[in-house]
Amino acid sequence: MRLIVQKYGGTSVGSPERIRKVAERLIETQREGCRVVAVISAMAGVTDNLLKLAHDVSPQPSEREMDVLLATGEQTAIALVAMAVNALGGRAISLTGAQAGVLTDRVHTKAKIANISPKQIHELLSDDYIVVVAGFQGQTADGETTTLGRGGSDLTAIALAGAIGADACQIYTDVDGVFSCDPRIVGDAMKMEEIAYDELLELAGSGAKVMQSRAVEFAKKFGVEFEVRSSFNRNPGTIAKEVTTNMEDVVIRGVSIERHQAKVTLDDVPDTPGAASRIFSAVSSANILVDVIVQSASDRNATDISFTIHEADLPRTEELLAPVVKEICATRLISHGGVAKLSVVGIGMRSHSGVAARLFDCLGQGNINIELISTSEIKITVVIAEKDADRAAQLTHAAFGLARYGTATR
Amino acid sequence: MRLIVQKYGGTSVGSPERIRKVAERLIETQREGCRVVAVISAMAGVTDNLLKLAHDVSPQPSEREMDVLLATGEQTAIALVAMAVNALGGRAISLTGAQAGVLTDRVHTKAKIANISPKQIHELLSDDYIVVVAGFQGQTADGETTTLGRGGSDLTAIALAGAIGADACQIYTDVDGVFSCDPRIVGDAMKMEEIAYDELLELAGSGAKVMQSRAVEFAKKFGVEFEVRSSFNRNPGTIAKEVTTNMEDVVIRGVSIERHQAKVTLDDVPDTPGAASRIFSAVSSANILVDVIVQSASDRNATDISFTIHEADLPRTEELLAPVVKEICATRLISHGGVAKLSVVGIGMRSHSGVAARLFDCLGQGNINIELISTSEIKITVVIAEKDADRAAQLTHAAFGLARYGTATR
Repeated sequence: MRLIVQKYGGTSVGSPERIRKVAERLIETQREGCRVVAVISAMAGVTDNLLKLAHDVSPQPSEREMDVLLATGEQTAIALVAMAVNALGGRAISLTGAQAGVLTDRVHTKAKIANISPKQIHELLSDDYIVVVAGFQGQTADGETTTLGRGGSDLTAIALAGAIGADACQIYTDVDGVFSCDPRIVGDAMKMEEIAYDELLELAGSGAKVMQSRAVEFAKKFGVEFEVRSSFNRNPGTIAKEVTTNMEDVVIRGVSIERHQAKVTLDDVPDTPGAASRIFSAVSSANILVDVIVQSASDRNATDISFTIHEADLPRTEELLAPVVKEICATRLISHGGVAKLSVVGIGMRSHSGVAARLFDCLGQGNINIELISTSEIKITVVIAEKDADRAAQLTHAAFGLARYGTATR
Repeated sequence: MRLIVQKYGGTSVGSPERIRKVAERLIETQREGCRVVAVISAMAGVTDNLLKLAHDVSPQPSEREMDVLLATGEQTAIALVAMAVNALGGRAISLTGAQAGVLTDRVHTKAKIANISPKQIHELLSDDYIVVVAGFQGQTADGETTTLGRGGSDLTAIALAGAIGADACQIYTDVDGVFSCDPRIVGDAMKMEEIAYDELLELAGSGAKVMQSRAVEFAKKFGVEFEVRSSFNRNPGTIAKEVTTNMEDVVIRGVSIERHQAKVTLDDVPDTPGAASRIFSAVSSANILVDVIVQSASDRNATDISFTIHEADLPRTEELLAPVVKEICATRLISHGGVAKLSVVGIGMRSHSGVAARLFDCLGQGNINIELISTSEIKITVVIAEKDADRAAQLTHAAFGLARYGTATR
């Protein structure tokens, strides 16, 4: 008998009506001859309401109490899903993270899963229950409630699938799968049948909002294959897995765009040890995430350092760096918002040369100026003007034949 | 060091503002040199919202899942109270029912407390924490979440106070204490300083909405004294305790009124075994609560049986009894709504005669007709027309000198 883990996000259980739809699908999956474990997120909006309440009573709520508070969101949802299954003639039982055996470390609000003891889940599955588990939460060895942080429910699903040896792990979401580019930007973007963990990680890290990197990393580490698919239709989604030879034949798998970026450049930073460190310590001290960092070649005992941040963080960054510019004796700081990042990703890039050339050529022909370039083993990122972003994505998508590839493999 | 349990109901924690007030009082109590355990209900309205969600997904939600769902209400509240205490510079920690060691039987939605293991509470108190415990909930021996049913948070507070050997148990509510009559009806009704458990039980059972009988019975059984007082002011409330000699000097302690009652009479019920049983089985099969039952003396092989129910249950009761009237060969069924119950309660009644006479006399002088009379050891209840209820309460309150008594003991 196949054993399946299905994870439903907050949008998928966002109303009583949608909860009933989830219940129907769980029962249907069981009737197709599967044992079913459902991992459920809090109903959309609930977590935000709880956060608001917390900040209404405390400017800086303790993380332990935040976990006690937030865990109620998923607990509410599992009870409702189990009720809905039972109301439709199915047989379901809900388990909190603790009851499901999800043991974590003690780092409240961003705990790591230490171990899963799925004994109770196996017993309930043997008794033909649909087991409905709260995502995002666990318990420490001394019985404290913890939560796993952003993307925590995906992580619960993938870790559970690994721990119980599931035959499949399906991540239900509000999109049909992983696409070669955002279909709202590129009309002929194609849903991929398969994607390598590394590709999904690079796409997640460059603006594609399908999965949190953390859950994908966990899946990669423990070799848990999973499928990203829509809870609103029956279409197959995209399966994330280890690299197969076949996958390497395709040079580029996807194009992603991230908007609302700003570029910051420090000119003529003296080429002395510690200068870069001073810059990025100043920025990170305010919890500002720095993305692409580029340092130009040093040929006159000074160098230019550029990086990108979210546009919203620009005023604060300028403020933080003003004293640093003087301190490290750089000539000046130049910064502007209104830029976007475009990335092309594919594990096939490793074995193919000329990807960068083809990308730059296609953007050049489109008269799109490249402000920064950064590369990793399976990704090339360029920073361009935000107004050019959509056109750049369309040109790149076409230049690498992604629509054609998508069609060919369907 | 004094050890105090303070219980706050849903209204007392009904908003972030009120939660801060509760936090202030907890800190203040600790600063007065006490160790403090707080027992918290769900924020007012939350439980109703959860019930609505449950009924949106299921016509008849399973009781196990209902407990998983409802327990989130108190869990949310304890986290917020603990956060609020910490925000005000105090040191608090929240515990769910399970974490507080509240072990129950397996009867979901109306579980009974089997045992309390307060080890963790004692340890946290020694570490100077204000311990914030979720009321209304517990856990079975095999880790299932349970709830205690109506009045469950009062029960948690009283049981915890007993288990940890608290020096005081304070039940904070939205009234100032237990009054000799409802102050909205009787202007000079007086707050009692003390009340016997039995008196409070009889008052609770006859319309005074201060405490659920169940919590009072528990307190009586284990001899836990508690104080009912307001969370909106600093006035002392009413202490519930075992009988003291002093208390027996007072004949009547309180007058209660319960409105919206209906009276049902079956005339000429043949005086054969099983007739009464047929009547009340039929009514209770529909979960209709029958209150006062009176059977008149049998002197002609037939008897009249009367009882009261809530007015809203009258149509269904008439429907259920129509066939029974024929079956047991009673002559007819007479029923009408628009009646009220008036009860006078006092343990002093045991040792004083003439209470009934004084009550009937006072109502007679007020030209108030008595439709039914029922007595217990420490209570006399009369059924009267609802339109006379307020006036009857005022006359009775005055006739037994309750206002004067209240004043004398303040």
